[in-house]
Amino acid sequence: MFTENKYTAEPFRDIYPSRDGSPARLLERIDPVLYAGDDETAPIAATLVKQYREQGFVILENIFSDREIALFSAELERLRRTEATDTTDEIIREPGHGDIRSIFKVHESNLLFNKLASDNRLAGLAQYLLADEIYVHQSRVNYKPGFRGKEFYWHSDFETWHIEDGMPRMRALSVSITLTENHPYNGPLLLIPGSHQYYAVCEGETPKDHYRSSLKQQQYGVPSDALLQQMAQRGGIVSATGKAGSVIVFDCNTMHGSGSNITPFPRSNVFMVYNALSNRVVEPCHGLTPRPEYLCSRQQIKAITPQTVDYGNS
Amino acid sequence: MFTENKYTAEPFRDIYPSRDGSPARLLERIDPVLYAGDDETAPIAATLVKQYREQGFVILENIFSDREIALFSAELERLRRTEATDTTDEIIREPGHGDIRSIFKVHESNLLFNKLASDNRLAGLAQYLLADEIYVHQSRVNYKPGFRGKEFYWHSDFETWHIEDGMPRMRALSVSITLTENHPYNGPLLLIPGSHQYYAVCEGETPKDHYRSSLKQQQYGVPSDALLQQMAQRGGIVSATGKAGSVIVFDCNTMHGSGSNITPFPRSNVFMVYNALSNRVVEPCHGLTPRPEYLCSRQQIKAITPQTVDYGNS
Repeated sequence: MFTENKYTAEPFRDIYPSRDGSPARLLERIDPVLYAGDDETAPIAATLVKQYREQGFVILENIFSDREIALFSAELERLRRTEATDTTDEIIREPGHGDIRSIFKVHESNLLFNKLASDNRLAGLAQYLLADEIYVHQSRVNYKPGFRGKEFYWHSDFETWHIEDGMPRMRALSVSITLTENHPYNGPLLLIPGSHQYYAVCEGETPKDHYRSSLKQQQYGVPSDALLQQMAQRGGIVSATGKAGSVIVFDCNTMHGSGSNITPFPRSNVFMVYNALSNRVVEPCHGLTPRPEYLCSRQQIKAITPQTVDYGNS
Repeated sequence: MFTENKYTAEPFRDIYPSRDGSPARLLERIDPVLYAGDDETAPIAATLVKQYREQGFVILENIFSDREIALFSAELERLRRTEATDTTDEIIREPGHGDIRSIFKVHESNLLFNKLASDNRLAGLAQYLLADEIYVHQSRVNYKPGFRGKEFYWHSDFETWHIEDGMPRMRALSVSITLTENHPYNGPLLLIPGSHQYYAVCEGETPKDHYRSSLKQQQYGVPSDALLQQMAQRGGIVSATGKAGSVIVFDCNTMHGSGSNITPFPRSNVFMVYNALSNRVVEPCHGLTPRPEYLCSRQQIKAITPQTVDYGNS
């Protein structure tokens, strides 16, 4: 099931350096965005594939039915209720008031979301775009509460996964299945089109166990004002708005973040990160201790076989 | 120039109580929204007047020319630069990093904004809607920086002005002249249509010198989650987006706030609050010490004569 990681021996840290004392700057991406060669096998329209390649993300509407979304939402609510007082590391709370913000590793711990991880509409698409066998690098359900939902500052996931997890190259992507309507005003995902073509070298170093605080508030691996300005002036900013049941697919290096949510309307989603099996993580950079398994599949990597899932039996 | 305040003797505190230990609830507004009786003299289209009356706000586009906006913006920038190290109370800074967020009382301290306060497009409209002589209750320039612009939580201005300043009744309005483009994603003003018809009684009491912290982060005079939910589900939420040069006119009791701004695009505006001269402030509620003059004109009330202003001579 496991394939050889062909990048392990390469000096990938010289290709995408960060937090190593060198100044903030943009490096050009050297990896492909679209690994697939043959568009005839694409599971989505060619124009959508093109959008993904050029912008670094694509929003697919009406992928999941109302019934499926209701099922996922009910499961998320059930998890929030039953784990409300749970203190395991997989559960991340809002700073200040302690409401649950995210629950990680749901593709392993939860039967429904385990099924979802192999759902052809997600896993099949990821396998196509990455043109490799795939596995789940990370999964989570996110709940951005109304009234006091905090912002999440700009970041490239890849920068973190590369430095803190040792993900060699840009051959991973995230899918976010929206369980609530994303309005422009309730803190939707913001993305910078075209930012995936540049690697933003971040200043500063990484403190030990950074992940404990970074999941609540990012302090390291933060792109500089000047780099963000450069990228946003070139590509603009897009708010990923849309009805529940949409899927936002974005490249691992697309710069994204979200503002606060003061509205009464919460925002929730299920998140799956697919990585190419050939791109599985090696040692973290700078001698950092590997982050826990719930943030980064390292020991428990299982290749996924995309399939048609019937949630009727859940 | 000064008229008698006909409300002084009335028990207005029983009409719009708040922060008095009683539970959070919505009271129906008993004051008119539109004091003007004769629509034929309206300085804006009747449909816009209707919007203002029904929603509690109206967005007027292209009110100021690019040249005027450039002039106001340059003045705001000049003020930010020259007052960057100033520590007078009129200057409010962002929590944490100290960037200037607002400068108050610019209608008194600054020649250009003094002219603007009497500009017919603002003052004439305010005089029409309030159907009285008017004065500036408060003025400020706001600068919501990019990257780290903080949110401002939901509030009705009237609740604060009533409790902390002793403004008797709902016969005041704000105008916000936008100096930058308001995108959906850079923390635009959010308003709840129809919320102006209800007075949200807030829980808690008011600590001494509350204004010092409330201008940075609201903690008292905050409507409850349940009341906000009720209002937002009834009226929805509108993001006041639009190009520089627009004017957002909103009733003193319209529930509003804004999310954070993580984008590189700052958001700035000039704010004028016009109050009816007959509605000038009396004693604050609950024996509170009056807030400073820069937040609430009390001693230095000057009726305004709306006029056509030529900024060419500035």
